[in-house]
Amino acid sequence: MNFKIDNLQYCNWSREIFEFNRAAGLDAVHVTIVYHEDYDELLVEIKKWEKLFSDNSDLIFQGKDYNDIEKANLEKKTAIFFGFQNCSPIEDDINLVEKVHNLGCRFMQLTYNNQSLLATGCYEKIDSGVTNFGREAIKEMNRVGVVIDMSHSAEKSTFDAIELSDKPIAITHANPSFWHPAKRNKSNDLLKTLSESGGMLGLISLSTSLKR
Amino acid sequence: MNFKIDNLQYCNWSREIFEFNRAAGLDAVHVTIVYHEDYDELLVEIKKWEKLFSDNSDLIFQGKDYNDIEKANLEKKTAIFFGFQNCSPIEDDINLVEKVHNLGCRFMQLTYNNQSLLATGCYEKIDSGVTNFGREAIKEMNRVGVVIDMSHSAEKSTFDAIELSDKPIAITHANPSFWHPAKRNKSNDLLKTLSESGGMLGLISLSTSLKR
Repeated sequence: MNFKIDNLQYCNWSREIFEFNRAAGLDAVHVTIVYHEDYDELLVEIKKWEKLFSDNSDLIFQGKDYNDIEKANLEKKTAIFFGFQNCSPIEDDINLVEKVHNLGCRFMQLTYNNQSLLATGCYEKIDSGVTNFGREAIKEMNRVGVVIDMSHSAEKSTFDAIELSDKPIAITHANPSFWHPAKRNKSNDLLKTLSESGGMLGLISLSTSLKR
Repeated sequence: MNFKIDNLQYCNWSREIFEFNRAAGLDAVHVTIVYHEDYDELLVEIKKWEKLFSDNSDLIFQGKDYNDIEKANLEKKTAIFFGFQNCSPIEDDINLVEKVHNLGCRFMQLTYNNQSLLATGCYEKIDSGVTNFGREAIKEMNRVGVVIDMSHSAEKSTFDAIELSDKPIAITHANPSFWHPAKRNKSNDLLKTLSESGGMLGLISLSTSLKR
């Protein structure tokens, strides 16, 4: 069966956009619900989404696993999967990984451009790779079922994540460096390793990732 | 004038200990008030200290600058200077540096053993040095008057901090590596650079930093 999935979207969500997504036949969207929010701030965003789900239950529902994509397709709705573009919601507490998973988080970037507690972002001068806490977080993400997303991560950190993770990782929104050498884009070597490990690359039409 | 200063202390503070410090003629103590607390959790600790100051005003008061050391000496009290062993209270918000200074923070470690948002700790496998956010935080700490403490930091991060900081830095509690090669201890090269930059080293009698 063929599904239409938007690998990552961030916008000012509204009924109009959910209708637009249905008109496009989108079965599932990975939605960025937070960037730099901490755990308490995440809870605020999730409350907003609870209202969106309730007000638009004819168009969308919260996706929890892959079966929900098929369900969305059959019911002509769009399954919304939550993702984080940074690891700030888990703060410095490994126990929060399971908590955010319980709240519906299915994708989390280990870093967003700059250094995080878990790994190095693509805009730092030096990339030290996955940190001590990052190694523990990856194990826990593997255990509970949160996909590791390295779209904004630096190269060594991304290689490390592929190696350390028992599950394939995702680069949900970045382009090959040979298209355009933006810091966020990925080298051929990295894309080869990503592919061999079963990981996925989602391309992005953001102009700064395609050309200057 | 000669002052007696404890460069760093962490314990279960009580009137008995304040009396003990006075008996020893201590003019000032740099007190670790938080390790991994965030900003809100810091506020809770500060409330506890407000009560300690109020209940023991014949023995201690809060130190804000060097004049308070002389004042303590004259009044036969001990000035308590607040310090953080990690940068978690400033979270990912540069504006919190001034706020924690207003609350009395005068020393802050950029990292405590592991990677922080500012720099690398001594127990990480790879030391990438001071991060993008770390460079901004150092400028802000210099501006408002918070001393950079690198006692638990990795070597390159410490060299970076010395170079980036306009003010001398402190290593309040660590030993030379030639005494004992604990990860937290400091190489001769580093101690030479620290000394040339006007920085200070406070020695520590913790057994793991002296011998196994």
